[in-house]
Amino acid sequence: MPSPSDWLQNLRGRFIVFDGPDGSGKSTQFRRLVEAVEAQGVNVCEVREPGGTHIGEEIRKVLLDPEVKEDVDVRCEMLLFMASRAQLISQKISPALAADHLVLADRFISSTLAYQGTAGGMPIADILKVGQVALGQHWPDLVVVFDVDEETAAARINPLLREREFNADKDRMEAKGAAFHRRVRQGYLDQAAGDPDRYLVINAAQNPEAVFHDLIQGLEGRFPNKP
Amino acid sequence: MPSPSDWLQNLRGRFIVFDGPDGSGKSTQFRRLVEAVEAQGVNVCEVREPGGTHIGEEIRKVLLDPEVKEDVDVRCEMLLFMASRAQLISQKISPALAADHLVLADRFISSTLAYQGTAGGMPIADILKVGQVALGQHWPDLVVVFDVDEETAAARINPLLREREFNADKDRMEAKGAAFHRRVRQGYLDQAAGDPDRYLVINAAQNPEAVFHDLIQGLEGRFPNKP
Repeated sequence: MPSPSDWLQNLRGRFIVFDGPDGSGKSTQFRRLVEAVEAQGVNVCEVREPGGTHIGEEIRKVLLDPEVKEDVDVRCEMLLFMASRAQLISQKISPALAADHLVLADRFISSTLAYQGTAGGMPIADILKVGQVALGQHWPDLVVVFDVDEETAAARINPLLREREFNADKDRMEAKGAAFHRRVRQGYLDQAAGDPDRYLVINAAQNPEAVFHDLIQGLEGRFPNKP
Repeated sequence: MPSPSDWLQNLRGRFIVFDGPDGSGKSTQFRRLVEAVEAQGVNVCEVREPGGTHIGEEIRKVLLDPEVKEDVDVRCEMLLFMASRAQLISQKISPALAADHLVLADRFISSTLAYQGTAGGMPIADILKVGQVALGQHWPDLVVVFDVDEETAAARINPLLREREFNADKDRMEAKGAAFHRRVRQGYLDQAAGDPDRYLVINAAQNPEAVFHDLIQGLEGRFPNKP
């Protein structure tokens, strides 16, 4: 009789993205899944955006440069993320998939659609158009969205912020932060609603155990068979 | 009676690109046109790719990094050029055109089409697709192509190379250099053939005086009236 974790073998050669706002707990779940899958002898290629390649690290420095951040045009920012992504695909993702490894990415084009698109105001169609060129055939098999309300996310990022950010007297900047988070969150939910076969939304406001349980159950439902 | 140079006023608010392979002499002609136009009291916004903005300079450093150059994926490279271009448009080109200045660019998307496209093997349609997003409404009014054969171009870049590069015994690398130049040149000529209203091809193998004469005559033919 196969062990209950045997089906994790089905993740070989798949390309799965973990995405969601900061504070969604996706990085914790990422680590747990890597451990569970590796315990089954599946090779995992872990990818984190931006960065992960020499060029990606250089692009990351450009994006984090305070002088750049101040003035960067949203299309320029989007194209820089896409450039780093194209390199990741060519250098890491494509060879790993060819070798039948599981590719697990922490953020991918779904982040650009949520942040620069829904929240940042760039037309979704424009991002998808550039994505077709940057990603080529390498679109993820599944995007797991760790969905969390802004209050829970903020409290996880910095527990001390909780009161200050979300009390009745929050000032305009703080209100803008919450509004931005809501637009980002809505961006992920819109993507999932528009492409339900490729997206899996997990309630990430639960405790980590419950989230991991839902994650594993969701993945098993999506990948019941070997590739 | 208007002076023969009066029509240069018609270049106000236009967006003109100078392009062509290295050694085509386009930068010399660029400088001469700037002087001629400024002498008529027209404000000129000069743009050089990549670079020209803080972000563009950072992107330029990434592209010139020897470790990057070795492994860069052609789509990544294309997207980096486009990112720098989107920033240039937002920060410099768009405001200059709004202020009725002449925008003169040394290289633009036509370089990407020739180098990464025709010579580098990326589909032209993919570059145009990304260009639609990166450039938005800001496509050049005119692209002047300084057309030159590979022998003349190489001799201009380094007169000492001439004999070595083009003698009967040229080795494989040198042959590849000449073949690459031919593909780049063909790329520019293909673009011009496909969009003759937006392109002006100048025989840049002539001496600089003759090239400038043809340039001025060509510009006057394209912009006979005020915008």
